[in-house]
Amino acid sequence: MKRPKIVVLGAGYGGLMTVTRLQKQLSNNEADIVLVNKNDYHYETTWLHEASAGTLHHDKVRYDISSVIDKSKVEFIQATALKVDHQAKKVQLDNGELSYDYLVISLGGASETFGIQGLDKYAFSISNVNAARQIREHIEYQFATYKVEAEKKSERLTIVVGGAGFTGIEFLGELGNRIPQLCKEYDIDQKLVRVVCVEAAPSALPGFDPELVKYAMANLEKKGIEFMIGTAIKEATPEGIIVAKGETETEEIKAATVVWAAGVRGNPIIEASEIENMRGRVKVEADLRAPGFTDLFVIGDCSLVINEAINRPYPPTAQIAMQQGELVAANITKLVKGDTNLNTFAFDNKGTVCSLGDDDAIGVVFGKKVTGTKASFMKKMVDNRALFMVGGIPLTMKKGKFNLL
Amino acid sequence: MKRPKIVVLGAGYGGLMTVTRLQKQLSNNEADIVLVNKNDYHYETTWLHEASAGTLHHDKVRYDISSVIDKSKVEFIQATALKVDHQAKKVQLDNGELSYDYLVISLGGASETFGIQGLDKYAFSISNVNAARQIREHIEYQFATYKVEAEKKSERLTIVVGGAGFTGIEFLGELGNRIPQLCKEYDIDQKLVRVVCVEAAPSALPGFDPELVKYAMANLEKKGIEFMIGTAIKEATPEGIIVAKGETETEEIKAATVVWAAGVRGNPIIEASEIENMRGRVKVEADLRAPGFTDLFVIGDCSLVINEAINRPYPPTAQIAMQQGELVAANITKLVKGDTNLNTFAFDNKGTVCSLGDDDAIGVVFGKKVTGTKASFMKKMVDNRALFMVGGIPLTMKKGKFNLL
Repeated sequence: MKRPKIVVLGAGYGGLMTVTRLQKQLSNNEADIVLVNKNDYHYETTWLHEASAGTLHHDKVRYDISSVIDKSKVEFIQATALKVDHQAKKVQLDNGELSYDYLVISLGGASETFGIQGLDKYAFSISNVNAARQIREHIEYQFATYKVEAEKKSERLTIVVGGAGFTGIEFLGELGNRIPQLCKEYDIDQKLVRVVCVEAAPSALPGFDPELVKYAMANLEKKGIEFMIGTAIKEATPEGIIVAKGETETEEIKAATVVWAAGVRGNPIIEASEIENMRGRVKVEADLRAPGFTDLFVIGDCSLVINEAINRPYPPTAQIAMQQGELVAANITKLVKGDTNLNTFAFDNKGTVCSLGDDDAIGVVFGKKVTGTKASFMKKMVDNRALFMVGGIPLTMKKGKFNLL
Repeated sequence: MKRPKIVVLGAGYGGLMTVTRLQKQLSNNEADIVLVNKNDYHYETTWLHEASAGTLHHDKVRYDISSVIDKSKVEFIQATALKVDHQAKKVQLDNGELSYDYLVISLGGASETFGIQGLDKYAFSISNVNAARQIREHIEYQFATYKVEAEKKSERLTIVVGGAGFTGIEFLGELGNRIPQLCKEYDIDQKLVRVVCVEAAPSALPGFDPELVKYAMANLEKKGIEFMIGTAIKEATPEGIIVAKGETETEEIKAATVVWAAGVRGNPIIEASEIENMRGRVKVEADLRAPGFTDLFVIGDCSLVINEAINRPYPPTAQIAMQQGELVAANITKLVKGDTNLNTFAFDNKGTVCSLGDDDAIGVVFGKKVTGTKASFMKKMVDNRALFMVGGIPLTMKKGKFNLL
């Protein structure tokens, strides 16, 4: 009897949770498990804003995949998945091809620029470790260059953050703490530095409790962050950005650094593989399979799960991806064992904490509002929990956040 | 009776030695001492190659001027000196004017590009703390960007060092140690990195013992440095450099980073002040006064002292500048006290050590050749001695190099 082959694409929160559960639930005789990932490491997407600001080294943000998989059960292939041929049950990789019996697409999202001109070319996106490192170095290089040039360009010391959503606000929190360090490092007067957040929506952190949003903005403003809320970016240019001002006018904000932190869409592989989707995201069935498929699961940023209470999709988060990973592992285990009565997914929202730098945060945890060092402590516990879920105590001890205030 | 006013321009090796000796030798009643410097800190010019490579933080390379001057005796003015009006006995500063009775010009040199096109625009020069920081950040930014870009530009990982003189070789030594760190930091295969040293003269380190030069080149080559000796840079461009190849041909070396470490000339103030000079350097009298002046001393990189043995100028080094500073302090003390029988300068060459990174060096010390860890140890002792001469044990303990192998 041939063992079924389970292929998991992507070693993010969802993918690693799937694989680490599968390797516990299935024996060597029951299935072959293959994990495909572009890098030989996993990175904490939700910590990338720290690596981008330079407040946390990127090696703290990633760990080797080999440290959490059971190599006697899981084969790891370092490759980029390009397309799924679901007819032939094969995945095209950049360095080969892979057949599967069950496929899990857990590839994470891509930046969504909503067609705003120049953003893809002139703005940075906090999308992975490589990008985070470049943002960190770009900002430092601007500060170093400002200090050298005879004719000072003040825009070198201006950073625009596009979007006051979760990622934008968390990045601003880190910048608020990082800027004084950078000014010290490069002998620059902090008054010369501008950090401007531009958000098209009428409020920062849409969906968050207004009282918490007010707290967050006030505390970030205390750290020197400027907000332009209800202001749309019309264009990104080599010199900075153009924003809308009133109905017809525009205004230029000169900035050497523009970071776009406003939109996420699904991975391009979804569209390339002609799976039914909305902006690269698949509205999955209750068992997390793509509609019309018996062998193809989609989780994480590429999946769309509706919050029935408000009839809108849940935002793609690490929390939901990990819960999906657990469920997919259970369902594939069932299928391998011949049980077609699959479990259905229900998101168990344990709350959300948005950090405002290492020392401050806001959040709703188990239905209760928290702010300040208490929220910051909880945020670190959330981060540590993700490590614990995948790699247990050893990984948590190695990569966890224990700089508790 | 009016106290004479002694003005010292520049807080480099020579200037600080002058001031710290003067403040010991003269009482408050005997003279007013003013020190003028662009920054409120002194930096170790001979350590800048380390800050530029990123192997030593620039804060280890500098210290506050206020920590070594006696504020009850010395007035410190932070300003850039532009021109000396020796007729009126005044110095023009960027923020005012200063009269003097005795003037010491100890301002350090400027980069000499010998008219090679594009060098001033496209090449970096290891000239001060600001420049060193920018070189460090520029190199890091190239590595970070290489990792992100879809179409890899290999020239981002190429560094050209123009000149295999003292500074060039010492910088290459640091790069040899730094490149493996950078490759680890940015997940880059070291085989992709090129460090090329281009030197027009027929040998590296002209004037050094050939056996030691051979040792240095072999050890740097082991660390991956390529040498193009006897090769002239014809031009620097935004893409890299053009070098001469044979009599008529040229060759392009694409490089995102070009560091020019080949030439030093005197400070522009010398020419601006119409003091007799050769490429900004003043061939000083035996008492270190500029020819024709009774009140104007020139020391350090702006001065030219002939080595009678070979009838060529001594290279401008920290060692000679400090010895000049001691002599100038003694001579001004004499003048203030009414003694016109001034001391004459004779350079006491204690030897020269050229570092090849933190862990290796070559040198001739008290007439004996040294290499390897022994030479490296001696180099650190030389560096510590400069600190001790100016700031005694406290400064040496604070900024000294004690990572002895």
